[in-house]
Amino acid sequence: MREIARPDPVATEALGGYGVATVHEAQGRTGLLAAYMRPIYTGAAISGCAVTVLVPPGDNWMLHVAVEVCRPGDVLVVAPSSPCSDGYFGDLLATSLQARGVKALIIDAGVRDVSTLTQMKFPVWSKNIWAQGTVKASLGAVNVPIICAGQRIEPGDVIVADDDGVVAVNRAEAVKIAAASKQRVDAEEEKRKRLASGELGLDLYKMREKLKALGLEYR
Amino acid sequence: MREIARPDPVATEALGGYGVATVHEAQGRTGLLAAYMRPIYTGAAISGCAVTVLVPPGDNWMLHVAVEVCRPGDVLVVAPSSPCSDGYFGDLLATSLQARGVKALIIDAGVRDVSTLTQMKFPVWSKNIWAQGTVKASLGAVNVPIICAGQRIEPGDVIVADDDGVVAVNRAEAVKIAAASKQRVDAEEEKRKRLASGELGLDLYKMREKLKALGLEYR
Amino acid sequence: MREIARPDPVATEALGGYGVATVHEAQGRTGLLAAYMRPIYTGAAISGCAVTVLVPPGDNWMLHVAVEVCRPGDVLVVAPSSPCSDGYFGDLLATSLQARGVKALIIDAGVRDVSTLTQMKFPVWSKNIWAQGTVKASLGAVNVPIICAGQRIEPGDVIVADDDGVVAVNRAEAVKIAAASKQRVDAEEEKRKRLASGELGLDLYKMREKLKALGLEYR
Amino acid sequence: MREIARPDPVATEALGGYGVATVHEAQGRTGLLAAYMRPIYTGAAISGCAVTVLVPPGDNWMLHVAVEVCRPGDVLVVAPSSPCSDGYFGDLLATSLQARGVKALIIDAGVRDVSTLTQMKFPVWSKNIWAQGTVKASLGAVNVPIICAGQRIEPGDVIVADDDGVVAVNRAEAVKIAAASKQRVDAEEEKRKRLASGELGLDLYKMREKLKALGLEYR
Amino acid sequence: MREIARPDPVATEALGGYGVATVHEAQGRTGLLAAYMRPIYTGAAISGCAVTVLVPPGDNWMLHVAVEVCRPGDVLVVAPSSPCSDGYFGDLLATSLQARGVKALIIDAGVRDVSTLTQMKFPVWSKNIWAQGTVKASLGAVNVPIICAGQRIEPGDVIVADDDGVVAVNRAEAVKIAAASKQRVDAEEEKRKRLASGELGLDLYKMREKLKALGLEYR
Amino acid sequence: MREIARPDPVATEALGGYGVATVHEAQGRTGLLAAYMRPIYTGAAISGCAVTVLVPPGDNWMLHVAVEVCRPGDVLVVAPSSPCSDGYFGDLLATSLQARGVKALIIDAGVRDVSTLTQMKFPVWSKNIWAQGTVKASLGAVNVPIICAGQRIEPGDVIVADDDGVVAVNRAEAVKIAAASKQRVDAEEEKRKRLASGELGLDLYKMREKLKALGLEYR
Repeated sequence: MREIARPDPVATEALGGYGVATVHEAQGRTGLLAAYMRPIYTGAAISGCAVTVLVPPGDNWMLHVAVEVCRPGDVLVVAPSSPCSDGYFGDLLATSLQARGVKALIIDAGVRDVSTLTQMKFPVWSKNIWAQGTVKASLGAVNVPIICAGQRIEPGDVIVADDDGVVAVNRAEAVKIAAASKQRVDAEEEKRKRLASGELGLDLYKMREKLKALGLEYR
Repeated sequence: MREIARPDPVATEALGGYGVATVHEAQGRTGLLAAYMRPIYTGAAISGCAVTVLVPPGDNWMLHVAVEVCRPGDVLVVAPSSPCSDGYFGDLLATSLQARGVKALIIDAGVRDVSTLTQMKFPVWSKNIWAQGTVKASLGAVNVPIICAGQRIEPGDVIVADDDGVVAVNRAEAVKIAAASKQRVDAEEEKRKRLASGELGLDLYKMREKLKALGLEYR
Repeated sequence: MREIARPDPVATEALGGYGVATVHEAQGRTGLLAAYMRPIYTGAAISGCAVTVLVPPGDNWMLHVAVEVCRPGDVLVVAPSSPCSDGYFGDLLATSLQARGVKALIIDAGVRDVSTLTQMKFPVWSKNIWAQGTVKASLGAVNVPIICAGQRIEPGDVIVADDDGVVAVNRAEAVKIAAASKQRVDAEEEKRKRLASGELGLDLYKMREKLKALGLEYR
Repeated sequence: MREIARPDPVATEALGGYGVATVHEAQGRTGLLAAYMRPIYTGAAISGCAVTVLVPPGDNWMLHVAVEVCRPGDVLVVAPSSPCSDGYFGDLLATSLQARGVKALIIDAGVRDVSTLTQMKFPVWSKNIWAQGTVKASLGAVNVPIICAGQRIEPGDVIVADDDGVVAVNRAEAVKIAAASKQRVDAEEEKRKRLASGELGLDLYKMREKLKALGLEYR
Repeated sequence: MREIARPDPVATEALGGYGVATVHEAQGRTGLLAAYMRPIYTGAAISGCAVTVLVPPGDNWMLHVAVEVCRPGDVLVVAPSSPCSDGYFGDLLATSLQARGVKALIIDAGVRDVSTLTQMKFPVWSKNIWAQGTVKASLGAVNVPIICAGQRIEPGDVIVADDDGVVAVNRAEAVKIAAASKQRVDAEEEKRKRLASGELGLDLYKMREKLKALGLEYR
Repeated sequence: MREIARPDPVATEALGGYGVATVHEAQGRTGLLAAYMRPIYTGAAISGCAVTVLVPPGDNWMLHVAVEVCRPGDVLVVAPSSPCSDGYFGDLLATSLQARGVKALIIDAGVRDVSTLTQMKFPVWSKNIWAQGTVKASLGAVNVPIICAGQRIEPGDVIVADDDGVVAVNRAEAVKIAAASKQRVDAEEEKRKRLASGELGLDLYKMREKLKALGLEYR
């Protein structure tokens, strides 16, 4: 699948700025990939358009096919057809993706050459880090819907990733969720100041009555 | 439970200086939380009085209740009533706790906004990092005994946490264990020097005879 | 077992320079320890001769015995006789090993005092970090073949470890694998340049025909 | 969502007869739920139309809502919005479902009262067995697409489950996959006889040449 | 600790009849051991007084010490001082316990000889089944409070175990919880009949209004 | 590798009779495969000569190659070159192996068609049960040393498997270990009788003095 519809670039960029936790909340606490998806280095925070790849266990051939369909601003999202921890991806593939403007890799499997990837500032969120090599013997698929770390990802979804993990936003919802995220961030600014000054959340959020109604007792 | 007995502040402070491994040994190799409890950033080392919170799975309402009963020098210790990985805690709650002088969070569940928490220098030891949001619908309990990461924690226990993990010291034992820890640290200083100079532990600890008696053979 | 045959020192040094992923590939994608073996700090990259230790669960006595047989340039490789997460190793043992010129520890169990070990620049690859103490009551064995993290290690094997994990090279193969690794690194240099300039792997590796033959379709 | 389109009943029934492994292969090795989904007793083999339920962690209220929309021949498929092991389902809910003709429960969480469920012959495939109770405090959703044990399930999909696990078949594909499954079963009958008589798979499947071409050597 | 206070025998017996799920609910959804504690064969259902044992990892010596303090109707509850999967217990120890009238073993570690134990009808709930042998080199403790599979157990607690897992009831609460369990069972009988006749839980439990108030919509 | 040396048939048969726990103890508590290797049905107990197979992840082609080199009384032992849970093996391969007199399969991966395998009485010890299909695209190796579930297995080793798990005995040691196992079983018979009659292990094994010397106190 060579051509995919890509999400609104302004919304995509904005969603990256709001970060994973905010975006996840803004879309009704949905869209998160599993907690085991961790960045290979801390401090990276990206967003971009998902190019999806389904790979056989222990076989990274389709990654090479996927490179060709990537465009600047894309994020490669990879899932094996059955659970696998092998190191599908290393510094050569990263060099190739970086040359094409790809911003990050999300892979529900292993990654290697992480020291070089860190120097290159090519961020990866993966299930694990492992040098185990892969073969090039069987086909998979590029730009089909996949299940990656427990979340369905369609090609063209917005991917947002930072130190809190990875969240996917449906392409058609990107503008709406960006707006909802902004609203959330704006509202939090005021709350943060009041909490920092020592005001209690119990008062700020007016929780005392509800808690009492449910039966909370102080001793 | 608003009021709890707090441990001796001098002993509490001292225990933090000795660190988790030393304190754990000094109290007879007890008190450690499970190995999966990891800090969100390296280099933090704290001690303080446990304020405990029992929370329902996926519901962080009681954290807001707990904030009110915290005092400067406390450590919030949170356990869900059944296993949960959700991100119960983020930067707003941390702002509130930091405003009240709370030193750290220990949570047998997930945490989020870890990038901001790191900038704020608010340390957290957690089961995992994950942005998954929680609701505010059901009650739990504050300052009751809880099982957190395989260890029973009572409100008022001393919590010591660093890069090696988390250990709890019974409030009534704090002064005694601080003294035993000091003794251990003093004794280790001398050993460290002798080992650094090339002396063997086999000789330093006089192990050769015991090993021979148990049947150790060299070939 | 006091005396072991040690691998070629030049090849051992060279293998460390090539790194885990390259060495693993150069020996036909074999020799890797399990993915859960992680360094206690990033950036360490070592190679050395394996001194092996088989330890009972929760008992680190044999580590003290092993120190005596280590020589400069060795790497201590430790496996428990049944799965264990205890913190077998801390800063005192590290001080002793460092005094003898040992380069690193590989342990299929836990390690503690990681903050001090990091300051000492004594690298450790372990299953986990945990302060849990061990006893000195039962014997094990030094310099026997062991299974460490799913890989058989013989005393005298070359151990290579970096941020990608840990790989073992058979002593008798060290020179051959070092040569094969060099060849691989040299070949990759050219590829990296071409990929960085935007050339596709599909063309560089001449994959298009094979993929078509297997039935790859573009839509 | 009260009303859903249900799959062809004849195909649904037939798919159950072919079993999980055959149906999974017949649809191109897709559709399997994760390996941790195990039956509470061996020997059950069912198929039916998926009624899906999304539940909050530790809250089984929506199961009661879902009962009402079930019809004879349905299979209830339940996934929590974040990972949970609680015992959402027991013998009272099973009594209610059995009274409505529901054939089985598939739940990516825990189940309890398994001794009674076994006596009732109400089969359940679950992540685990555990008595941990749940609350009724928050809403979820019935008959929306869910991710259950790593697989996307839409309401109306055919669910096939037996001792090998659980597979989902897209509603629109049910008739086609039933036909493909039949073809597979018919072809296997002949093979089974020839293999039972001692003929080698290498000859039966004409593999020798391909293996030789790939470089297989005998010694 | 030779002598312990034992719970009321009538309540202990009764709690066994109500089963794990009922007792857990009757005491406010508390007291359950972790979900990984599974019986070695299905259909066993017991209750009895806890005799607790703390054992070092890989060392079963204290089990022999514990046998002496057991009385008819007791249940041996064993936890290692750090996580361990070894097979601490086999048919010889079971023969000895059965000779003393002990009803079952609960162990947060491994068990072996399960085929013989099944024939002997000596039920065991364990973390895993594994033949790995243990040594007799270090001491532990008998009849002290332990944390077993995430739950604190005191000597003299009532242990109830069946196919749903294991629950502990505080000795002093046994009579009260037995009464509460009876009430629950009685109330369920009526509900079971109404549900079996096709009445919906939504109506039986009068949930419709509350669900509507929370915002549940039907489409 | 077509031809392998096979172990003594009388010793092989005898080891099967003694069972996994006894054989493991008789060879100094070594040789066990990991605890996650479980039988697909209870009650099977076998022994035989290991024919080993190394398979790529998700590729079962080499199993077909291995069938040809099996002889009556052999046990097929399969390990993937990196961790994999796929269902490599089903009823057709079992039919073929059973036709050649192979007694069992040991596989550090998944198995499927377990209902049929149970009816055929073809026992399998596996990491998991899962229907996930595999491809036939890449080569592996037959009758080379492998690491299976954490244990090194050489072709020609004796495999013993029952409800307690799987143990391997070195071919050259088989006669010796069979004799040592017999001695153990004979000694246990007497102990079992004395324990059944109520004699305490503390007295039977003369442990009281040693325990006292180590500091055991009764209260």
